[in-house]
Amino acid sequence: MKFGIVIFPSKKIQDYANSLRRRYDPHYALIPPHLTLKDAFEATEEEIKDIAEKIYTIARNFGPVDIKINKIGSFKPTNNVIYLKVDSPEELEKLRNELNSAFDGNQEYNFVPHITIGQKMSDDEHSDVYGSLRMTNVNFEDTADRIHLLYQLENGSWTVYETFRLGKE
Amino acid sequence: MKFGIVIFPSKKIQDYANSLRRRYDPHYALIPPHLTLKDAFEATEEEIKDIAEKIYTIARNFGPVDIKINKIGSFKPTNNVIYLKVDSPEELEKLRNELNSAFDGNQEYNFVPHITIGQKMSDDEHSDVYGSLRMTNVNFEDTADRIHLLYQLENGSWTVYETFRLGKE
Repeated sequence: MKFGIVIFPSKKIQDYANSLRRRYDPHYALIPPHLTLKDAFEATEEEIKDIAEKIYTIARNFGPVDIKINKIGSFKPTNNVIYLKVDSPEELEKLRNELNSAFDGNQEYNFVPHITIGQKMSDDEHSDVYGSLRMTNVNFEDTADRIHLLYQLENGSWTVYETFRLGKE
Repeated sequence: MKFGIVIFPSKKIQDYANSLRRRYDPHYALIPPHLTLKDAFEATEEEIKDIAEKIYTIARNFGPVDIKINKIGSFKPTNNVIYLKVDSPEELEKLRNELNSAFDGNQEYNFVPHITIGQKMSDDEHSDVYGSLRMTNVNFEDTADRIHLLYQLENGSWTVYETFRLGKE
């Protein structure tokens, strides 16, 4: 079974992200707008109970994290993903690092906190869409006070297994 | 903002339900397969904090609930909804009643625990589909050990606000 760990931003941010995702992100119907803290990993239904305990302990030792979104970015040339760039204090990276090292200590790339709004585009599509979005004036603030452990169904969609409050017993 | 309270059954049950929902349920992409404990209700982001506290207290006083699914049913003539019928001990109804009376004491109809697999069908479609599904041999058992508080986004899809473990501090 595949699991992942994310933050769902406020409804306002999710609604804004979805207004773009519906056109540009084929994963639109599979998962709500989210900031990934730990990419998909394999675990059994038995293993996940211990993993959930670990996540609980990690989450409890963090406080809520303030995030700001002021910009639309792109991962090109690495890949044709367009995203809401998330500015956040160091705590978010610390949280992400602890969550990742709790499982495998393996971080494949630098952490660029983001909320994907477009992906799986051809180079031409990406140029067009990013060209028209990159100067968009976006301005959101939010406080993330919880993280979510999700699992993937056979159709590719994600269901929440459990939420963990940041900094709360 | 619209909130609701549901149980997500095991992945196995969700995958089975989705194999039917993809054809018969226009809400397929809006929410994973679920058993509704409290229908959509309005609350503000401030109010929901108190409501979440109430749900936490109620959930803590219940243990995990065993459910069985042996049958596909229909709400016709009330409406053209086809569902997986959920057999459950009295605890599930008690839990549902406590959750509902915690807010408004208002229960519009008898509780028939179910997981919707088809809806918004014409009478003819409903007859066809239910006619072919009603004798299906279904056989699932599951233990629900958590409930989920969700909120609805502007596009009609649902995001999890928080999970509550049944019977756990």
